[in-house]
Amino acid sequence: MTTQVIVLNGGSSSGKTGIARCLQAILPRPWISMSVDDLVDALPPSLMGPGSGIAFGQQGEVMVGEGFRAIEAAWMTGVAAMARAGARIIFDDVFLGGAASQERIRTHLEGLGVLWVGVRCDPEIAVGREIARGDRTSGMAATQAEIVHQGVVYDIEVDTSHTESLDCARAIAGHVV
Amino acid sequence: MTTQVIVLNGGSSSGKTGIARCLQAILPRPWISMSVDDLVDALPPSLMGPGSGIAFGQQGEVMVGEGFRAIEAAWMTGVAAMARAGARIIFDDVFLGGAASQERIRTHLEGLGVLWVGVRCDPEIAVGREIARGDRTSGMAATQAEIVHQGVVYDIEVDTSHTESLDCARAIAGHVV
Amino acid sequence: MTTQVIVLNGGSSSGKTGIARCLQAILPRPWISMSVDDLVDALPPSLMGPGSGIAFGQQGEVMVGEGFRAIEAAWMTGVAAMARAGARIIFDDVFLGGAASQERIRTHLEGLGVLWVGVRCDPEIAVGREIARGDRTSGMAATQAEIVHQGVVYDIEVDTSHTESLDCARAIAGHVV
Amino acid sequence: MTTQVIVLNGGSSSGKTGIARCLQAILPRPWISMSVDDLVDALPPSLMGPGSGIAFGQQGEVMVGEGFRAIEAAWMTGVAAMARAGARIIFDDVFLGGAASQERIRTHLEGLGVLWVGVRCDPEIAVGREIARGDRTSGMAATQAEIVHQGVVYDIEVDTSHTESLDCARAIAGHVV
Repeated sequence: MTTQVIVLNGGSSSGKTGIARCLQAILPRPWISMSVDDLVDALPPSLMGPGSGIAFGQQGEVMVGEGFRAIEAAWMTGVAAMARAGARIIFDDVFLGGAASQERIRTHLEGLGVLWVGVRCDPEIAVGREIARGDRTSGMAATQAEIVHQGVVYDIEVDTSHTESLDCARAIAGHVV
Repeated sequence: MTTQVIVLNGGSSSGKTGIARCLQAILPRPWISMSVDDLVDALPPSLMGPGSGIAFGQQGEVMVGEGFRAIEAAWMTGVAAMARAGARIIFDDVFLGGAASQERIRTHLEGLGVLWVGVRCDPEIAVGREIARGDRTSGMAATQAEIVHQGVVYDIEVDTSHTESLDCARAIAGHVV
Repeated sequence: MTTQVIVLNGGSSSGKTGIARCLQAILPRPWISMSVDDLVDALPPSLMGPGSGIAFGQQGEVMVGEGFRAIEAAWMTGVAAMARAGARIIFDDVFLGGAASQERIRTHLEGLGVLWVGVRCDPEIAVGREIARGDRTSGMAATQAEIVHQGVVYDIEVDTSHTESLDCARAIAGHVV
Repeated sequence: MTTQVIVLNGGSSSGKTGIARCLQAILPRPWISMSVDDLVDALPPSLMGPGSGIAFGQQGEVMVGEGFRAIEAAWMTGVAAMARAGARIIFDDVFLGGAASQERIRTHLEGLGVLWVGVRCDPEIAVGREIARGDRTSGMAATQAEIVHQGVVYDIEVDTSHTESLDCARAIAGHVV
């Protein structure tokens, strides 16, 4: 089945965005890159914060309320519709709920050719890269490194600890059909 | 009919983004903000440039090829699907083709409650604001100020020349049902 | 005396940056634009936060500690040295301490030809523009609008409430000698 | 002699900025981070482009004119003055002229305790990282990787090809006195 969506799942600072850009550069056809971060950027102030929306704690924890979940579901329905309409999509996400998150995404993408990619990174290395990025909210790399992969099933896994983004992208590209 | 999508159409530097943010702040329910600029940011390098993709000329002209058009259509299908799935969407766009652009968007949004908003700005003022923004590509404000409104039909028009974004947003909010 | 430094003082969201960019565009000679925001961006994590560093409160208040003040003084000495070495500088700042802040800057700039510019904006309008900018920290516009001008003496004042950045810049440019 | 300035020299995408942020995080005292990129961001439109200013070619080459050189010299005088006034500075630069560039910087920093750091990266790896960063101007990594080090003398060299930014920073920190 032709690959229509490439899902990259990994913790914060694991290197998903860099891999997505490399995939866009090396894949022969045009792919657009989308991320749950795009949704966060699109939110109204009322959904940025604890309660109904999405909030980021001091230790890097992410808290998600019902209002955010409802909009996320509608947004994900739209991302799937883009793919069904012919746009090839590299979708990067953080499966905070592990296997349950994958199940939710899988339901949205039903009928589409999906390549599931795990982007791993040694937690200690991810923490160092978080410092190098200078993001004000630190702690996310450590918190997410392991839990986002719990129970998740992949077609291919890459590890950015000692492999460059471009080489990871090449390995992934070999599975795109 | 309940408003599900607010379409803001206006030239570059006419103030669409500021109005969108104010709408998000004052409307009682959560609205997400999407823009054709988001699509441009999501494109692969192969579609950034003349030919098949989207290119920005020295005088601020925008050239759009078939590859971009194909992905834009799929992307727009997805935006409409988000709205159908329940996400309220403020969508800002630049109708480079005037009435023809509106027709294309209208087809995508068929069946949805759409509020069509024209965002006007005196061309000379828009040019000044483009300078104040410091964007490297200048000329877009002057090129687009008039043509994006040609033949377009609106539910409401606002003019940012002498009215603040927040006041424009309040006027628009009065038409959201 | 030849103008070597243009100091723009005004509250958050009063429009200083836009005026600075317009001045750069219309002044016949090259001017570089510097801001206390550049210093904030250059700070280490240890100075971002309450205590010794600079911190931003929930209501838009800015708290400044001794560690920040010490580095700011050294940084300002350097900005003055750039001007003495021949770089024309547009310097935008927020005089949180009003007249006392001006005195401190005046001491640093001693011997240089300085044009003092007050950038005013109706507080209600500045608050609206802060919403339109979508900055996550809101409240700064309201908090700072009046206090930054208390006791400060200017060569020229502009008001962005009903005057475009470019027109304000033209008025200022008429005082550059 | 106490270290007052840490100069990081390396080609584009060699990892200087990440190392600078890690240094800021691990060094016991506060250091501010400055870069020639800050100057470029501060330039007026008249100095962005070929001729007198700074221009970036299609193949990643950087062309620098007299107007830029004059302002850069004044700006560098100011950076040195900041350090003399007590600000500890991590300064990252790209020695396009190799040894001649170092000589110019050395003159500005005369009398200060300077730690000269070479930031190397395998050219092929730097090119891959440039793709992963998604910068629109590609080619700079390849063009600059070797030439910026020609004839330059360092106190310490790090290589980001197979060493993380944080580990490079730790090695450098061991030389800060």
